[in-house]
Parts: sequence; structure tokens; C-alpha cells
Amino acid sequence: MHLITFKQNNHSRIGVLDTVRNEVVDLTAIGLPGDMLALINAGEVGLDKAREAIVSGEVRLALNEVKILAPIPRPLRNILCVGKNYRDHVSEVQSALPSSGDGVPELPIIFTKATTTVIGPGDTIPASQDPTDSADYEGELAVVIGKGGRGISRHQAMEHIFGYTIINDVTSRRMQKGHQQWFLGKSLDGFCPMGPGLVTRDEIPDVTQLQVKTSVNGEIRQDGSVAQMIFDIPILIETLSQTMTLEPGDIIATGTPAGVGMGFEPPRFLKTGDWVAVTIDPIGTLENPVG
Amino acid sequence: MHLITFKQNNHSRIGVLDTVRNEVVDLTAIGLPGDMLALINAGEVGLDKAREAIVSGEVRLALNEVKILAPIPRPLRNILCVGKNYRDHVSEVQSALPSSGDGVPELPIIFTKATTTVIGPGDTIPASQDPTDSADYEGELAVVIGKGGRGISRHQAMEHIFGYTIINDVTSRRMQKGHQQWFLGKSLDGFCPMGPGLVTRDEIPDVTQLQVKTSVNGEIRQDGSVAQMIFDIPILIETLSQTMTLEPGDIIATGTPAGVGMGFEPPRFLKTGDWVAVTIDPIGTLENPVG
Repeated sequence: MHLITFKQNNHSRIGVLDTVRNEVVDLTAIGLPGDMLALINAGEVGLDKAREAIVSGEVRLALNEVKILAPIPRPLRNILCVGKNYRDHVSEVQSALPSSGDGVPELPIIFTKATTTVIGPGDTIPASQDPTDSADYEGELAVVIGKGGRGISRHQAMEHIFGYTIINDVTSRRMQKGHQQWFLGKSLDGFCPMGPGLVTRDEIPDVTQLQVKTSVNGEIRQDGSVAQMIFDIPILIETLSQTMTLEPGDIIATGTPAGVGMGFEPPRFLKTGDWVAVTIDPIGTLENPVG
Repeated sequence: MHLITFKQNNHSRIGVLDTVRNEVVDLTAIGLPGDMLALINAGEVGLDKAREAIVSGEVRLALNEVKILAPIPRPLRNILCVGKNYRDHVSEVQSALPSSGDGVPELPIIFTKATTTVIGPGDTIPASQDPTDSADYEGELAVVIGKGGRGISRHQAMEHIFGYTIINDVTSRRMQKGHQQWFLGKSLDGFCPMGPGLVTRDEIPDVTQLQVKTSVNGEIRQDGSVAQMIFDIPILIETLSQTMTLEPGDIIATGTPAGVGMGFEPPRFLKTGDWVAVTIDPIGTLENPVG
């Protein structure tokens, strides 16, 4: 299922996207929770009800009558992010951000983005709010945890995934560098476009087959295969959960492939009027104007 | 007021500590919210009601009949932390963690700790859960935001503070180094003892007069004055809120003075059976056994 969070008449609710009919099946109208975190917490029972709703043809809305929000507009805590997780990206970071450590990391690099960074599809990335004028895009596959836990082995890891979405891990490059730890440069309000949908795990039998493509004003900048990750999704879940208890709704942005703006000479940072699109089929395309 | 979160008969609630009588004024029993975040959100109205309750002698409990929890057992998002914010501490970090950048930082170093790190006074710090066996203490003054906002200037910053508490920013030193970004080494479950109380701002007219003292098994290891901070509290709030919207209940751990375990040669990491106490008068002493 392609789950979405949407707004209609100023009320936020959740639904299933029917891309064939261009409709939304309104899950909140049939008694399911009003927000995605509650649906995730409801586990299989919640998903079964959602599946029934599609078949029985419950309340349907035309797609053009609703506004799609980020699938999880307010995460339960900071978004977990992985740094330098695609081989080609490591080299371009190396030249632009020499303080970031040498070469391919031996262990996953984990940092977070503040909850207040999240915006939805179509919302404006406020690049002009970056006082150092160096906002950059990073298209990423994001994993949403369904069943939490501590000490999850890589072999069980996939069973803990609720689904997948797309994140643009927008970054102020000069702040990332100047403040040494990356959190601040990654945490400007509005610097985490997310969506459009949250696709349940069963729809994507082999996640390593996915391709992450980012374009700016129609020009392809990033085009990397999830199979190229240095630390794959099971290892990331194992590493994180060795340290901390993962919780239902936790979001893990799995890293970005080569082609970010800072990799160009001179760097090509985002500027007002740009249009960024991150595509990961079959999740969809996350598009945002830059302001 | 010395606000606390406490548990009695398995119910969590909030109260005011009366250190003279060794009693707790139960605020939840008189209709105030059951948790600290809700009280903070209630603003001055909530505080006024609490003040009235003390005077009118409402429901009082003997201190030894309740268990004091962390004042905010479940923060609304990750705890904001400041790295290398005391001059003497910078030097000891330098020798032990050379990858952490040179000398006194030019800009505040900000990272986060996961919400699942929080434990209360008296709870066991699970040092033995650190697979690299290098758990270290960091006694710190923590600021709790009352009134949120973006673009708060250093001149207005103090008005946005709800109060102060104590945090022990327990850290796995080998994980902190091995994973490059500090988040994981700072985020093991149970690695953030907090408390005992949350002292409202009006009780501490000049926060720079406070002294942060940490002892391990009775031996003083850290004894630093808040006046020695490289980036003081108004600058930290200004820096953070230039980037992100601060929210009521946000917690900022302001950095640790010299004397951490990794500064010794050989390092003196925490081990099972140790007892760590962080004292900041008039907030109190945060004591935790190590397991």
C-alpha cells in the first residue's frame, strides 16, 4: 500500500493512494487513527483494516482535492541519518569536507536531524534561511521502523521495517563544516522534505533493486543504486539497535549517492527558484521548490 | 520552585519538592497536568497554580514514600548537547580524541542524544552494555526551554528558559571515536541520567555563579564554574534558534568541565560497582550507581 498523510478542509488524516484512479481512500473516515504514527503502532491489525477498506470501496476522495503532507509530519523524535554510505559519494565529500574523516568509513556514521525540519511534497525548501548560503540536496531512501526493539540482528532486521519513503536531507554545507558535528547544518527548519507516500514493506520485495535519482531543474544530479550502499539496511538496523532501542515510527535516512552540489567545482548550491525532485520507484517522486 | 516528576503506587505525576520538610506537594492531585512537558506548556498559569498549592498546603507526601524520576522522563525529541564548551576540557579531549578538531571551537559544536537514553536519579547507568567497554561520565548543567521560538537574540534568551536541571552525558568513548559523528556513542539506552529536580529560572538569578562538580566513588573528578563556558547560555540559545525553532520542553545540555575519565592516563572509565554523583547547587545532586 501507498499510505499518505493528507489534509482536506484543514483536517489532517491518513489514507491509501490509488494511483490508477487518482483517488485517496480515506482511512481516518473509516475509524482508523488520524495520524501515521498511530497506524504504525496498531501493527498488522491496522494494516489489515486498511487493506479491507481498499477492497470494499470505502470513502474515496479525488487526489486533486487534497493536499499531501509528509507521511510523518512530526516524527516522534529526531530523524536518524547515515553519513557517507555510498562509495562514490565518499570521494566527493572527501575533497569538499576534508575534516570529515578519511576514506570509506569502517563503521556507520550516524547523526540526526531535528523534528522541526520536516516539510511535505510541494512545500518550499527555505534555502535562503541558511545564513551561510550553502544549502545542498541529498536524495535518500528512508526506512520507517514498524516493530521496535533492541539487539535486532541483521537477519531479523527486515521484519522490523514498516515501510519506505523518500527524504531530501537538505544540508547547509558551511554550517556542517563550521560547527564540526553535523546536527546544526542538517537541522534548519524545513530542511527535510519527506514523502510523498509511505510504501509498506510488502510492496518492495527486494529493496536493493531501488534506484535513487535526484534532479535539479530537470537536470539529473544523482543516480545511485541502493545495492551500492556501504552499510546495507540490515546492518544499519543491527548497528543502531545494538546501541539504542528502536521504536515504531523511527525514521532512518540511509545516506545519499554521489552527485551532491558540493561535489561540483565550483559548488552548485540550491538557490531561490530551483526545483528539486527525488525519485525512487515505486515510492514516487518527492518534488520541492526552493525559496 | 524545585519541580520533580515522581512515581507513587505506579502512577507517574509531578510535584514540588519541599526540602525543609522533606515532603512533596503533589501537583497532579490538585488538577495540574500529570507530566512536566504539559506543565511547561501551560506557561505562567501553570506555575502560578503550583505556587498557590505550596502556600495553601495541599496534598503532601513524605519524600521517602515516592520514587523520584527524571524531571522529563521522555523528552519531546532528542536532547540537544554542546561539545567542548569548557576551556580546560578542550585540552583533555584533544589528546584523547584527536579527530575532534583543533583547539577551542570557533562555533558551538552541537550533537544530540536519543530520547531513550534518559534515566532518573538512583537508576543504574548500564556501562556494561557498552560493547567497547569505555563508558565515561560528563556532569553538565542542562537548560529547559519554556517559551519556544526562532531567531531568539542573546539579549532575550534568558526569558525563554523554564528552568535548570542536571544531566550526566554518559558517553562510550570508543564508539564516539569509531563512528566519527558522536550521536551513537552518546545514545546507548540509559546513558542520560537526569535530575533530581527541575529548578525554575526565578530561583537562580545568576546562572554563571553555579559550580558543576562530579565525583566517582566519592573522589572529586570535575569541579568547573559555569562562568568558564566558552559559549554561554544566551549564545547557545541564540545559535540554536537561528537554525531551528526551539520548543517548550527542549533540553540543552551545556557541556562538561575538565576531569572526564578519558583525560586520565590510562583512562579511568566507569565500571560496575562505581557510584557517580553530579552536584550543582542549588539544583541538587544527581547520583547513579554503575552496572
